[in-house]
Amino acid sequence: MSTVTLSLKEAYDLAMVALVKAGVTAANAAATADALVAAEVDGQVGHGLSRVPSYTLHARVGKVDGHAVPVAVAAAEAAVRIDAGQGFAYPAIDLAIEKLLPLVAKTGVAAAAIHRSHHFGQAGRHVERLAARGVVAFAFANTPAAMALPGGRRSLMGTNPIAFAAPMPGRAPLVIDMALSVAARGKIMAASKAGKPIPEGWALDADGNPTTDAGAALAGSLLPIGGAKGAALALMIEVICAALVGGNFGWNASGFFDGDGGPPDLGQLLIVLDPSRFGGDGYATQMAHLLLAAAGEAPARLPGDRRLALRQKAAAEGVTIPAALHAEILGLG
Amino acid sequence: MSTVTLSLKEAYDLAMVALVKAGVTAANAAATADALVAAEVDGQVGHGLSRVPSYTLHARVGKVDGHAVPVAVAAAEAAVRIDAGQGFAYPAIDLAIEKLLPLVAKTGVAAAAIHRSHHFGQAGRHVERLAARGVVAFAFANTPAAMALPGGRRSLMGTNPIAFAAPMPGRAPLVIDMALSVAARGKIMAASKAGKPIPEGWALDADGNPTTDAGAALAGSLLPIGGAKGAALALMIEVICAALVGGNFGWNASGFFDGDGGPPDLGQLLIVLDPSRFGGDGYATQMAHLLLAAAGEAPARLPGDRRLALRQKAAAEGVTIPAALHAEILGLG
Repeated sequence: MSTVTLSLKEAYDLAMVALVKAGVTAANAAATADALVAAEVDGQVGHGLSRVPSYTLHARVGKVDGHAVPVAVAAAEAAVRIDAGQGFAYPAIDLAIEKLLPLVAKTGVAAAAIHRSHHFGQAGRHVERLAARGVVAFAFANTPAAMALPGGRRSLMGTNPIAFAAPMPGRAPLVIDMALSVAARGKIMAASKAGKPIPEGWALDADGNPTTDAGAALAGSLLPIGGAKGAALALMIEVICAALVGGNFGWNASGFFDGDGGPPDLGQLLIVLDPSRFGGDGYATQMAHLLLAAAGEAPARLPGDRRLALRQKAAAEGVTIPAALHAEILGLG
Repeated sequence: MSTVTLSLKEAYDLAMVALVKAGVTAANAAATADALVAAEVDGQVGHGLSRVPSYTLHARVGKVDGHAVPVAVAAAEAAVRIDAGQGFAYPAIDLAIEKLLPLVAKTGVAAAAIHRSHHFGQAGRHVERLAARGVVAFAFANTPAAMALPGGRRSLMGTNPIAFAAPMPGRAPLVIDMALSVAARGKIMAASKAGKPIPEGWALDADGNPTTDAGAALAGSLLPIGGAKGAALALMIEVICAALVGGNFGWNASGFFDGDGGPPDLGQLLIVLDPSRFGGDGYATQMAHLLLAAAGEAPARLPGDRRLALRQKAAAEGVTIPAALHAEILGLG
């Protein structure tokens, strides 16, 4: 595959210019470009520059409001609601982080519920930014429906990322970030394009039967991790995002990749806890014990550690993207 | 298998008498017997009356303090710490529920961190009791180590239950309650006793290789759901319970079934959110939509619904336990 290597500045500018040409305000484009480049750097290319074509399409057709300004209101003493205004999620997440940090210092636990929102991107980045400021953080987001209840046929639940981060003494935070499907939909789309089969256990066809045919899988549903357990976790996230926060359930949300159906209108939740208000000094000691125990298991390592190596590499060498994607982004608008 | 059927009152008294004879105070025995019978009723027999022999053993050897009185202190405006005093978890959970409900009505989100605690039991019950009072609730607990990091050999993480409950309009709350291992350790112990093999994908032997030998599995480690994803979720719960709350990591916790090693000294976390402070009236509407969507997927159903049928049955017919367990409990002390 032909590729193009870009410095981080070039990668940022590539996304920024495309977003601004699509009518997105400079502030919203900057927050969005920052997030896309961070995902690209961390090797989460599905949340990286590959999103620029669909994001700019959404801005042009009004599926995302490029002019939205997120608004925060106090929902209760320890909770804030953020109206993302059907704009990009990233400016709303920036505002949530800004509001949560002083709040949790007083309250010990705090939550930010983001509604009227769009694609959540790399969930791990949001919690990592919070953990880098000393708090333990959870993030939950639902996505357009892709998974069925066990034994059901209709996709009710998204692949629904869950992320968690915790400060670590003397190093970058521990970050856990996963979708609840066995395989990312993007991998199945790639297999379909390449005319290749997919492994067993990734997906069901439209009749609810197991399939290794990528096309049949795209017309069917993805399988959750752990069978009924992963499906239950995905349902938990639907309840959090659609009922508690107030957004669309996965089965009502418009798709992230096409221009159809109006804004996805999604809900997202961040919960933070201040370890200094719970275990006190014991927190850092225990995390040091965890690092030591994990080091004893090498070559096994803590989840998320791959991203730290990738960041070093990207800082030195930049990021490499498909030449076709580079040309597509340059040609947008 | 020879069995004995008991009314719910008889089952409660059976546990209550055994605990009191082991030196547990009446108040602690009552909270504990309530929880054990509730688990038995819901078909979670691994958290039911089968625990009476190990609980009474723990009380006799001092692994659990039957005289402990849990103490709550405000940790911050929205957070409470509960010292379970190395006693049973259930009286501490009762106190946590009592403290969380008035707190979350003001703060929108609230957390109770229980430390110096013991076996958490049926996690779904704790969150269900909160959801029955109108709040959305999460529960996290770690357990003695049983699972390794992916590619590692030493068990660092417990099977680590995660539970979630949400109020549902006009019916019992939605309850999600799972351990993060593919199979419960109890199933492998039963296979070992019966000299039967276990399915592939449940466990690794002591060298980190897949095994279908139940004995080798007990000497090795259990496999998490979803491979690295389930392992990451189990690690998340270790961080929450051992570092944030302040308890033992799974690899330091003493076992739940024997009399060795002193108190397990575990941490547990409850987080509650008040839906009326977030989405407002939209919450009930969205949950009604979810019920409708799930009904359209029959025979597929929402997680936890099996317990509702089991409760009706137990209310009418009582609970049935192995005659050997019944005799063992009667002979205790």
